Amino acid sequence: MVTLEAVEQAAERLKNVTHFIPLNTSTTFSEMTGAQVYLKCENQQKTGSFKVRGAYNKIMKLHETGELKSVVASSAGNHAQGVAFAARSIGIPATICMPRSTPIAKVSATEGYGAKVVLSGSCYDDAYAKAMEICEQTGATFIHPFDDEDVMAGQGTIALEILRDLPSVDMIVVPVGGGGLLSGIAACVKQINPRIQVVGVQAEGAPAIAQSFHTGEIQPSDSVHTIADGIAVKCPGTRTMEHINQYVDEVVTVTDAEISGTILMLLERCKQVVEPAGASSLAAVLNRKVDIAGKRVVCVLSGGNIDVNLIHKIVEKGLVTRCRHVQFSTVMTDAPGALERFAHILASFNANIIRFQHDRVSADLDIDQAIVHVVCEVGGAEHAERVVKGLEAEGYQIEMN
Amino acid sequence: MVTLEAVEQAAERLKNVTHFIPLNTSTTFSEMTGAQVYLKCENQQKTGSFKVRGAYNKIMKLHETGELKSVVASSAGNHAQGVAFAARSIGIPATICMPRSTPIAKVSATEGYGAKVVLSGSCYDDAYAKAMEICEQTGATFIHPFDDEDVMAGQGTIALEILRDLPSVDMIVVPVGGGGLLSGIAACVKQINPRIQVVGVQAEGAPAIAQSFHTGEIQPSDSVHTIADGIAVKCPGTRTMEHINQYVDEVVTVTDAEISGTILMLLERCKQVVEPAGASSLAAVLNRKVDIAGKRVVCVLSGGNIDVNLIHKIVEKGLVTRCRHVQFSTVMTDAPGALERFAHILASFNANIIRFQHDRVSADLDIDQAIVHVVCEVGGAEHAERVVKGLEAEGYQIEMN
Repeated sequence: MVTLEAVEQAAERLKNVTHFIPLNTSTTFSEMTGAQVYLKCENQQKTGSFKVRGAYNKIMKLHETGELKSVVASSAGNHAQGVAFAARSIGIPATICMPRSTPIAKVSATEGYGAKVVLSGSCYDDAYAKAMEICEQTGATFIHPFDDEDVMAGQGTIALEILRDLPSVDMIVVPVGGGGLLSGIAACVKQINPRIQVVGVQAEGAPAIAQSFHTGEIQPSDSVHTIADGIAVKCPGTRTMEHINQYVDEVVTVTDAEISGTILMLLERCKQVVEPAGASSLAAVLNRKVDIAGKRVVCVLSGGNIDVNLIHKIVEKGLVTRCRHVQFSTVMTDAPGALERFAHILASFNANIIRFQHDRVSADLDIDQAIVHVVCEVGGAEHAERVVKGLEAEGYQIEMN
Repeated sequence: MVTLEAVEQAAERLKNVTHFIPLNTSTTFSEMTGAQVYLKCENQQKTGSFKVRGAYNKIMKLHETGELKSVVASSAGNHAQGVAFAARSIGIPATICMPRSTPIAKVSATEGYGAKVVLSGSCYDDAYAKAMEICEQTGATFIHPFDDEDVMAGQGTIALEILRDLPSVDMIVVPVGGGGLLSGIAACVKQINPRIQVVGVQAEGAPAIAQSFHTGEIQPSDSVHTIADGIAVKCPGTRTMEHINQYVDEVVTVTDAEISGTILMLLERCKQVVEPAGASSLAAVLNRKVDIAGKRVVCVLSGGNIDVNLIHKIVEKGLVTRCRHVQFSTVMTDAPGALERFAHILASFNANIIRFQHDRVSADLDIDQAIVHVVCEVGGAEHAERVVKGLEAEGYQIEMN
């Protein structure tokens, strides 16, 4: 089991390697929840996530024994960058195996930290098999992403930083996929102060640890489906589950919609870019998955490596959800001047047309009519309503999309 | 003129009011530029920008004399939130005049800090006139957004924080609109260490201070046009220009495209949300508008209040620019099975179709042909090229859009 001493030794190793990012006090989220909410922004950590802590601690500890030649890992995510960065800092060669489908941006980021990337197979399991093969052939050491006590101890250093910043913390809420981060934090916190609650958060579409925690035996998931790729793990570790069963108070789940909404709020209110896995902890707090009333709650935002394509989709969806984009269809006469009149009304309401499509051939249209599909930028729900009412007052029948 | 003592007194007033955000060291930007680049993240400041510093210092100083009843400001931007927050902290009523076109989100944010918002007229000048009217009627005190030495001294406290964090700094790069931030920082820095260079950055479409600085006389702009609304100021202040002429080494300009590219990099690499005005300083550094080779350079990221709609547009444009979205047109047979064949090729290259439009009625099409307009998600330029080459090898003529 991970001892407090192991975490303290890890902190010593990491002292001049990782960033210390002070807790971010969030007035907005505190007012929204009636708790005192603090954010531990590991999205700002080197390599964009906490993973560098565990990887560095593991590799440095092996290096101290003098027997380490090279390291191998399999990951398409933050662990890849963590291992690559840690190995380069120590001066050890690293090979990272990734599935062929890995986005080019992630491959480049990992290569940018000096690692050799080997693309192999179509899924994580294939990349893992390749990593094992390389270890056998070359005598390199495999660095597990979570089921390793030195890795867990490295992640646990986050708990020491939180306790130093806010000794009176009541609850720490932590994203959990394989369980390395949660195990490390919970083991450290409970050995220091068992009064502090530690809660894990999983994605509803990848709930292996939540189910294992509640049933008392390891329950792998056959398949996982969530935008939170960083915590989409099919099978919990046996070592991490031991720690979670012993030290964690509760494991809850959040939906992808709750995660998306939280990412958008973090962008707008905190000016922070957080990846879906990283936002799951705050999503649980904002959606009352845990009892936080009146408590001092630290949410660990575990990483910030989100693809810009996904930011784009989340913002786009958020704009519709919050009535910043209003989508509707209406029938207009298919004749000169008809569009001018329509556009004039929209302009008079200060609504900015961003998409406009004609449909002249629907079966139930008269020959002199067209359906138009419109998307407008507006200020919010109240503005959207004024625009729609204004069109209706001028005789248009509006169907919201 | 703003004295060092005035800035130190401001720092004393602000001590338990503003966040102290340590400099962010950026390996990415340092490697890109051959300088040591540090970021002063005032986007993480209370109210989302540095403006709260000047507003608080001004209002608190007046409050200390015991004669202050209420305050009025005119602004559709960060100054509004800064004044509202500062007034509430001190317990003074605040009224903010904004043009009617102000986005609802900004009105709500300002009201959220307890200020009364008065919407008046169609532009800033109308809102300003309304503010003056209210001051005359009620005896309230007008808080100028920049042309005021107490406001400048408040903004100058950023310089003290930078020097405490990095005493060996060689250059500080600062966004400039009306000139309050630049004046305060330059006055403070040069009185402490004249060796440190201070550079202002304006938007190319709103260059009043750059032109005034280079010609030696105040040159208002007739009109301004830039995405950087926070620094889109037509006329520099007379007091700020005095400080800039005396203390600033250079004022340069950046384009909107340079600013957009920088915002996207800050999102991806630093996990930071920065508004266009706030990103202009780093844009100048990344685009070599100043000589920074080998220097220790601090870029002030002055604010993070960017509308999600604008984030959306910047990311969308960036995705096309970086070949993460590839747009093209091609002619295909207008017959059953034609689309299936086409879609099969795209799928085999792992390209995700996100928009697809038929055009059957162009003048130069044969009757059995259709033009299709396609947008696909791809991994990057190299992936885009493979997709296009793959389609061409199957006989499609591809026209890039």
